[in-house]
Amino acid sequence: MDAPHSTTVAVTGHLMDTGILARVLDDVLEYGGDYLIESLDLGRRHEDESRALVRVSAGEGDLLERIVMRLQTHGANPVDPGTATLRPAPADGVFPDDFYSTTNLDTCVRLDREWLPVDRAEMDCGLVVDEVDGGAGGRVVVRTVPVSDVRAGAAVVCGARGVRVEMPPAVARGEEEAFGFMSSAASSEKPQVVLVRQIAERMREVKAAGQKVLWVGGPAVVHTGAAPAMVRLVEAGYVDVLFAGNALATHDIEAALFGTSLGVDLAKGAGVPHGHEHHIRAINTIRRAGSIAAAVASGVLTGGVMHAMVRAGRPFVLVGSVRDDGPLPDVYTDVIGGQRAMRAQLPGVGFCIMVATMLHAIATGNILPASVPLVCVDINPATVTKLADRGSAQAMGIVTDIGLFLEQLARELAP
Amino acid sequence: MDAPHSTTVAVTGHLMDTGILARVLDDVLEYGGDYLIESLDLGRRHEDESRALVRVSAGEGDLLERIVMRLQTHGANPVDPGTATLRPAPADGVFPDDFYSTTNLDTCVRLDREWLPVDRAEMDCGLVVDEVDGGAGGRVVVRTVPVSDVRAGAAVVCGARGVRVEMPPAVARGEEEAFGFMSSAASSEKPQVVLVRQIAERMREVKAAGQKVLWVGGPAVVHTGAAPAMVRLVEAGYVDVLFAGNALATHDIEAALFGTSLGVDLAKGAGVPHGHEHHIRAINTIRRAGSIAAAVASGVLTGGVMHAMVRAGRPFVLVGSVRDDGPLPDVYTDVIGGQRAMRAQLPGVGFCIMVATMLHAIATGNILPASVPLVCVDINPATVTKLADRGSAQAMGIVTDIGLFLEQLARELAP
Amino acid sequence: MDAPHSTTVAVTGHLMDTGILARVLDDVLEYGGDYLIESLDLGRRHEDESRALVRVSAGEGDLLERIVMRLQTHGANPVDPGTATLRPAPADGVFPDDFYSTTNLDTCVRLDREWLPVDRAEMDCGLVVDEVDGGAGGRVVVRTVPVSDVRAGAAVVCGARGVRVEMPPAVARGEEEAFGFMSSAASSEKPQVVLVRQIAERMREVKAAGQKVLWVGGPAVVHTGAAPAMVRLVEAGYVDVLFAGNALATHDIEAALFGTSLGVDLAKGAGVPHGHEHHIRAINTIRRAGSIAAAVASGVLTGGVMHAMVRAGRPFVLVGSVRDDGPLPDVYTDVIGGQRAMRAQLPGVGFCIMVATMLHAIATGNILPASVPLVCVDINPATVTKLADRGSAQAMGIVTDIGLFLEQLARELAP
Amino acid sequence: MDAPHSTTVAVTGHLMDTGILARVLDDVLEYGGDYLIESLDLGRRHEDESRALVRVSAGEGDLLERIVMRLQTHGANPVDPGTATLRPAPADGVFPDDFYSTTNLDTCVRLDREWLPVDRAEMDCGLVVDEVDGGAGGRVVVRTVPVSDVRAGAAVVCGARGVRVEMPPAVARGEEEAFGFMSSAASSEKPQVVLVRQIAERMREVKAAGQKVLWVGGPAVVHTGAAPAMVRLVEAGYVDVLFAGNALATHDIEAALFGTSLGVDLAKGAGVPHGHEHHIRAINTIRRAGSIAAAVASGVLTGGVMHAMVRAGRPFVLVGSVRDDGPLPDVYTDVIGGQRAMRAQLPGVGFCIMVATMLHAIATGNILPASVPLVCVDINPATVTKLADRGSAQAMGIVTDIGLFLEQLARELAP
Repeated sequence: MDAPHSTTVAVTGHLMDTGILARVLDDVLEYGGDYLIESLDLGRRHEDESRALVRVSAGEGDLLERIVMRLQTHGANPVDPGTATLRPAPADGVFPDDFYSTTNLDTCVRLDREWLPVDRAEMDCGLVVDEVDGGAGGRVVVRTVPVSDVRAGAAVVCGARGVRVEMPPAVARGEEEAFGFMSSAASSEKPQVVLVRQIAERMREVKAAGQKVLWVGGPAVVHTGAAPAMVRLVEAGYVDVLFAGNALATHDIEAALFGTSLGVDLAKGAGVPHGHEHHIRAINTIRRAGSIAAAVASGVLTGGVMHAMVRAGRPFVLVGSVRDDGPLPDVYTDVIGGQRAMRAQLPGVGFCIMVATMLHAIATGNILPASVPLVCVDINPATVTKLADRGSAQAMGIVTDIGLFLEQLARELAP
Repeated sequence: MDAPHSTTVAVTGHLMDTGILARVLDDVLEYGGDYLIESLDLGRRHEDESRALVRVSAGEGDLLERIVMRLQTHGANPVDPGTATLRPAPADGVFPDDFYSTTNLDTCVRLDREWLPVDRAEMDCGLVVDEVDGGAGGRVVVRTVPVSDVRAGAAVVCGARGVRVEMPPAVARGEEEAFGFMSSAASSEKPQVVLVRQIAERMREVKAAGQKVLWVGGPAVVHTGAAPAMVRLVEAGYVDVLFAGNALATHDIEAALFGTSLGVDLAKGAGVPHGHEHHIRAINTIRRAGSIAAAVASGVLTGGVMHAMVRAGRPFVLVGSVRDDGPLPDVYTDVIGGQRAMRAQLPGVGFCIMVATMLHAIATGNILPASVPLVCVDINPATVTKLADRGSAQAMGIVTDIGLFLEQLARELAP
Repeated sequence: MDAPHSTTVAVTGHLMDTGILARVLDDVLEYGGDYLIESLDLGRRHEDESRALVRVSAGEGDLLERIVMRLQTHGANPVDPGTATLRPAPADGVFPDDFYSTTNLDTCVRLDREWLPVDRAEMDCGLVVDEVDGGAGGRVVVRTVPVSDVRAGAAVVCGARGVRVEMPPAVARGEEEAFGFMSSAASSEKPQVVLVRQIAERMREVKAAGQKVLWVGGPAVVHTGAAPAMVRLVEAGYVDVLFAGNALATHDIEAALFGTSLGVDLAKGAGVPHGHEHHIRAINTIRRAGSIAAAVASGVLTGGVMHAMVRAGRPFVLVGSVRDDGPLPDVYTDVIGGQRAMRAQLPGVGFCIMVATMLHAIATGNILPASVPLVCVDINPATVTKLADRGSAQAMGIVTDIGLFLEQLARELAP
Repeated sequence: MDAPHSTTVAVTGHLMDTGILARVLDDVLEYGGDYLIESLDLGRRHEDESRALVRVSAGEGDLLERIVMRLQTHGANPVDPGTATLRPAPADGVFPDDFYSTTNLDTCVRLDREWLPVDRAEMDCGLVVDEVDGGAGGRVVVRTVPVSDVRAGAAVVCGARGVRVEMPPAVARGEEEAFGFMSSAASSEKPQVVLVRQIAERMREVKAAGQKVLWVGGPAVVHTGAAPAMVRLVEAGYVDVLFAGNALATHDIEAALFGTSLGVDLAKGAGVPHGHEHHIRAINTIRRAGSIAAAVASGVLTGGVMHAMVRAGRPFVLVGSVRDDGPLPDVYTDVIGGQRAMRAQLPGVGFCIMVATMLHAIATGNILPASVPLVCVDINPATVTKLADRGSAQAMGIVTDIGLFLEQLARELAP
């Protein structure tokens, strides 16, 4: 006989050669539950999919719920999903205690009989059910809402019942072969020239498909002398959106404003002395102009990455941090407001590349659907590892030099 | 004959064995100026001070001003300081173009004949002259103001004339011997047990002198299992103020709320699986309570570092970042507001220790006067190096394991 | 019908939750072969073992052989093993082209009907069949021989036929629970105090079972001030054998000979200045004495780790490297000779701990059977990763500070 | 009055802006001595040289000798050098106790009145005085001898008297400007494309001057896919000598022999799976051929870096380490023998570049005169730092990606 609290989940895909089943079973044990493999319909050849049914049991009902929610991050769903439980948010910015915490996988919710698609995938949010176009023709939608945005009384999905997630397409074998390095762990021991070529190829495909390329960058883009290469990529149309902080924009503008006048000459390779005050002057200059775009329009700012973005009419979102000086007038000082601005740029993004930033890379990883392939490039292996550890399973890491990487990429895409 | 633009600066101290003079001369050249050593009155023995006069020249007047400002970061001041030039701020949040950019050294400004002390030392700010208690008995004060806080029309010190900085006391030889490792570069190859003992000794002295110990911490304090040691340090009175982000507080509270119930057992050493949803539930719980203090008061939160801080009545400042989930209701989501809250806690701080955080360590380094000794502890050498690179010259770095370090420190201070 | 070149392998164990099957299938594809899962008898509960039969096929016969040899590193063996093919070594120090390249798993070879155990497990060697006690009562043995030691004409096992490997016991679930962290990846985010306690516990068990504890150490043992803690561990009987290079012994002896006389005082925490000549004087002093043991006997060397090892009568193997000065007279300057000396110390070793060394850690990992649990402790995550990457699957990595780690371990074992 | 043990040293050069004087004074204190600056004749402009006289005192005579020897590593020499003391080596491989330990600076020894140049500069050796062409026309020479090579009875220079060192030319200002980055610390935040161009320029100059370019390489040259770029550099004549270990040569040959046949395809970017047995097969193949050159001659080896070196008739020295498998027949297994072979290749070397190796980089740094400029390229900052820490002051570090770096360098030099 079964334990009082148990349910059966199904997991489908390349269970053997991707290790998904192993992770599902590990997690059951780690959360203090137990499992029984009810059936396993195995793909005999490596191109076949498999399907496993696993009965999960736990000592308490809410523990079982938590385990099931955890398994959903691997694409495992209850066989009998039931229908969703809705409870009102008890206050502004507060979910009910047992709210369903989202994954970054595509998700559906069943309210009555029907499965409704969730508007977008983002991890660690809640699901809110709304009626839009109220009245007779009213339509019900399920929205992904961060905890800071929920309003008191909103109908929040609670527990795991009535929720189904879809495996990310990037994990499919065929996809992996087309974009082979996607399955690779972070490594500095790869033929780098080949990797650059693969990324260039992928960017061309994404653009050809009418999708956007999202860049997330840190100040080392400027320090490593890669700004000219980055400008060429902007001008060639391969930077549709840029997420960054105060530092990248400030160092870029500082180089444009003071690059040659003070003998700190990037072109000579003498490096950027730290701790001097040029950056605060550069910030002050832009504050005086009112904004980066205004500084471009008035002829104060005539070069660099930010100038190129303004000229190309491409949006950027700069979100501040507690270590910022200034900051530039374009910078969101409220980080939750900054997250909202970043989310607003995600629709249409088909590829994401993160270069030389840990803070903004993780911030973007937090809100990016798992269906968007992403590449994280950094000279520090820890950045890439940290990104993958936090659940961005679709991340591919390249440990390499940013300056030479961007130079090679610009050579491929904007020769 | 002199070049049209030149001035003589004096630099005093242990010029030979600290390398200060070498740095002064290097910076003149790096900024595109030239120098002539007019005189050098050398200490003959290592306990003597030296004094050098260096004539600095530059092709343009404003370049000369910038060089002099740069040299002031090393404690070099013009022999003929002149009197300060004041110009009105052109708009809210904007300094005049040639504003004096501050160092983190103690500073004085001469308006007429008299030298006025600046209220506090913080780098990359401006100096604003105010009349307080207006009228006949009006008193003039000079305040350090970040660019985001300046109001249109405020009287801002411009150029380097009339400004004098003082060498940080920590660089004095005698001080170094008392707290020997202060002069050391970051290193993992030091007798760590001795270093811990020295830090403990310094903390006791600071407390005995009636000063505050400021802690800046990252989430690894919790991940490495060091929270119990940290709690003992709080209870023993060695944590007067805590600066951190959403992550430290969230992971601490998550461990207190869910630590044992789900089998993720810190006590067994099985580690914290990343990416699960407990942290967002922990956040939601505290949001429901209203604040961390309210959760302590209502008995929802009964353990951990944040609980200990609340119980001990010690203040903490949590400042958010763009990668945050939630965040906790106590977190400043506006980073400029967060910086203001951090500055408000600095008076009375006599020692600062930073553990396992790069973001908040740099943020604190930005606002901390050079006269406060600081120790930065991280397992990643890059964190320490980055802090020193950004001008926090009084920083001493220790590359070590946070968990074992805090355990040893608690053994010394709260046995 | 089968492809011309195919064979069926069996793999047994916790296939699902250890990911072994996934690795087996991945490797088949990576080597350019193909597979078909013939059957999968699945453990339904997590304590059950599973057994899979996988038909592996390849375009060429020798490719198939290579794939099978590769799969044996995961404990997968052909169902129909056949009998071993023997070919004579063509010259001293040269194997036949298609020699069987060993894993570090326990291995058996079938010559006629009978399975003979191989004398010891070491990766990247060959297997040589010898007749000992020749004549009527002659006995046949199979020895693991490095390529540099094979003699012309020796009977070398070729191809994968007739060879069977055993899964390492450490991978069994039960074992993992007893010594839970063994399955963990390298991490600095673990409750370090708990890890130290687990290692201490394991060392006590190993000693109680009459087995030896093998230490592999780098010079940071001395630099971090941990030599006194290490000495206590030696004296308490927890260091049965020590593998190291010239540097650990030299720095240890240098500290013993010059530690206080020149003001470079480890006890004060002022650190070891690099590049000075004390180490070469220390080496010269020991060269004059003839050996470390002679220097102890004659009263020249009176403290430190090497002194403690000599006093305790425990063996050490010091193997040199191309960067060595001197070296000490005890150091093997021929690295192949050094490997032989290291191998001679392995019988009876039940636990291996590597601290602060990459070179000697990898060297030891190369020759250590997979059945010996090993812990690798380093402040640099790359060392641990590299060790695991090279096939030492039984390795558990701890990223921590050596000085504090050894202090804690000595507190546990030699209070 | 002076202490019983004191002497005056002179130090000349750009004392202020290079920090040399500060280091001299620091070292006196660190060794437990004291100093008095007797005079300082200061260059007033930055192109002028300065000269300082410093009286150094110590409690004991042999401590004073050690301090003076230490100061010589900074180019400081006694004003009254006296004449050298010679003592016989007490045994083979043993120096007298107070032997003069060499720096890597050009050195002269005064026996009677006359200063004799030492044959070559290498740190941590002794100086042996020999009479050559014995008889009436006998000529006296001073040779730099490692401790392992000294013979009993050889006349060894003892103490610091009668020894004078010369400052390395690379520290002169003018030189620095020509090759500006030589003075830079390790950094990943440099305009990398500019650095590559500067190195290319320097290599062209060195070749034009008829000098040799020495390369020291690690296996990542192959792993990062840079072998083809390296081959182009060999063929273009920019690799006169190569120092490496067993690993670089083995991985290079493994790629040449098995690169495409087994599906582990460097050209596709799928990376090199670790731990497989191809490398031991590659080694066995070359062992069968007898040597790398023999394998090239017989057509067994037809590509890769080692093949290119053999074809170009350029020498290489491969020195083994304790972690080696095999090794290749060309590898020196005796590390002292390997050092001798490396030393034999140094005459005529005008530039040294080290890529992706710590062990062989340090080994080469140990024997290389300070007058040879050297560049150390690695993705790991620790490698570069470690090299500089060990006394190779002329080292310039670049933290970058080896694959992209060599690709760019080949583009410059062998387009």
